[in-house]
Amino acid sequence: MPIKEFNPTILNQTQDRLNQLTKPLGSLGRLEQLAIQLAGITGQAFPVVEKPAIIVAAADHGITVEGVSAFPQEVTALMVENFARGGAAINVFAKQIGAEVAVIDVGVNADISSQPIVHEKIRYGTRNFLVEDAMTEEEASAAIIVGKKTASDYIERGHGLLITGEMGIGNTSASSAVIAALTGEPVEKVVGIGTGLTEPERLKKVNVIKQAIANREIKKNTSPLSVLAKVGGLEIATLVGVILEGAEKQKPVLIDGFISTAAALVALKLEPAIQPYLMIAHQSAEAGHEWLVNYLQVNPILKLDLRLGEGTGAALAYPIVEAASRILREMATFKDLGL
Amino acid sequence: MPIKEFNPTILNQTQDRLNQLTKPLGSLGRLEQLAIQLAGITGQAFPVVEKPAIIVAAADHGITVEGVSAFPQEVTALMVENFARGGAAINVFAKQIGAEVAVIDVGVNADISSQPIVHEKIRYGTRNFLVEDAMTEEEASAAIIVGKKTASDYIERGHGLLITGEMGIGNTSASSAVIAALTGEPVEKVVGIGTGLTEPERLKKVNVIKQAIANREIKKNTSPLSVLAKVGGLEIATLVGVILEGAEKQKPVLIDGFISTAAALVALKLEPAIQPYLMIAHQSAEAGHEWLVNYLQVNPILKLDLRLGEGTGAALAYPIVEAASRILREMATFKDLGL
Repeated sequence: MPIKEFNPTILNQTQDRLNQLTKPLGSLGRLEQLAIQLAGITGQAFPVVEKPAIIVAAADHGITVEGVSAFPQEVTALMVENFARGGAAINVFAKQIGAEVAVIDVGVNADISSQPIVHEKIRYGTRNFLVEDAMTEEEASAAIIVGKKTASDYIERGHGLLITGEMGIGNTSASSAVIAALTGEPVEKVVGIGTGLTEPERLKKVNVIKQAIANREIKKNTSPLSVLAKVGGLEIATLVGVILEGAEKQKPVLIDGFISTAAALVALKLEPAIQPYLMIAHQSAEAGHEWLVNYLQVNPILKLDLRLGEGTGAALAYPIVEAASRILREMATFKDLGL
Repeated sequence: MPIKEFNPTILNQTQDRLNQLTKPLGSLGRLEQLAIQLAGITGQAFPVVEKPAIIVAAADHGITVEGVSAFPQEVTALMVENFARGGAAINVFAKQIGAEVAVIDVGVNADISSQPIVHEKIRYGTRNFLVEDAMTEEEASAAIIVGKKTASDYIERGHGLLITGEMGIGNTSASSAVIAALTGEPVEKVVGIGTGLTEPERLKKVNVIKQAIANREIKKNTSPLSVLAKVGGLEIATLVGVILEGAEKQKPVLIDGFISTAAALVALKLEPAIQPYLMIAHQSAEAGHEWLVNYLQVNPILKLDLRLGEGTGAALAYPIVEAASRILREMATFKDLGL
């Protein structure tokens, strides 16, 4: 389905309404920009944002055998169990904003079929992309389709906004590799500490990713899908699908931090028309994220030095997006006051 | 009542809990700092933040006759009517976060006694502080007491967090004058466009405030109460009382933008022990606010280019403060996961 361009008539209607509300012109700053973006995305001058759904894609990464993460791979499955029990940060924030959480196993390297989550496992973790492609293009496409299908299901069930979340030990490495490969930015600039590396460990991670990009023979003209397959991750691919489906169905997708933004970058390279749809919830403390949001020409809503993932930053930003939609429908105009 | 120092044993208990939660150490960034500050303020290792109450103090300013505002004075009373009807931005955000709104007339220059708000009018607007003191010290003290009493009432009724809000055409002028007088910062650096001045109008406002500070014979050793009386406002004084009472009663007060932070400055000069209690919701787009929050050594939670007041930035930041308290009580620990 093609991505619709924002309708200028609708954007003007929204701007006119903002200008009539009982406040000095432009005094709600970023909220007014968000209100206009929501109008553009939804094609409605007075968009309604309600019933948020958080899609948390989980998968493992073969690259972890190279010692690129502070936590062992087993933590991915344990955290999925924690999501299922409701004990993770994203569960707490989801409850606070009244959001449903869908946890999807697209590639956890353990049999977690007994967990009460969505089972769409494509394979038991990606391959080690230092020595071979992380996935085939078919596997990457299958994960994108899982994301699109999940997003579509939630939209059909009346969820007005989707939040991207993820869990996967090693996924900052895969994200950094994807970002460096797709933008040409030097690897060292887009590699951070992940879950808590020391500086020598981070430098080792930089070298592993540099070598991997060389080994995978990624060139300037390598396709976005091929880059995703060679050095990406199954959960990243799933979120690419969520972001694309949201834009196609004209529903806002609130993009979380570093890994989710890497997915947004892949989505943008696959479909450049989604750029005005990009809504990034927060600027992560992970190195490279600030550069990446500038590259995408998106201004994140929050900056709280978060580096957790799971969708936490997006869940925290959700009330601000909701507030942006509410002002259009609920505030009085100067005319209402007799002015 | 003296202001309690933060209890280091409690702060350590909170930090220990944060370190045990199922997330990388420190990965919730600013939320973890807020959790510790809430523990310090309340004296509880696992503080509960609930039932927020928004105290919106309204008053007029004699200085408006000098042409320092883009809006006429009559707008103050009209906006109070708007608050009473539920049509202002603060009403919309209050509804969203489930907060009660108390609108207090401490000095509106109109008979609004028929409005369903709290009536504590001290006088019909301040005097024009270019030519005479805005208030007597007795009037300023009376307004502080209104704020303390209102805060105390809400706390006794079980409200766990107070939000400061205000309405008063001309109150950025009074705030800028108070800030320049109490900090010694040049007037031009702490004067912004308020509700929407042009640059020539802003420069006129700078000159009026400079001349007023000279005329009021404010010296380095002029007391904070005297500065407040000479160039402040009745709503600013009321918020000074709210901020002081919150600290005395160990309840968090979420401070809104430029005018509320001017009140926080007065409160700090009156009672330096409140510094660790200061929680500033957002960095306003009003010129001088960024400098002021640095002066107060406080890191605002949000930066959304807001310049509306009413308590809107604080209401938008409230869910983040609530989230900071929830993680302590609702997230699982690594021990819960068997790690």
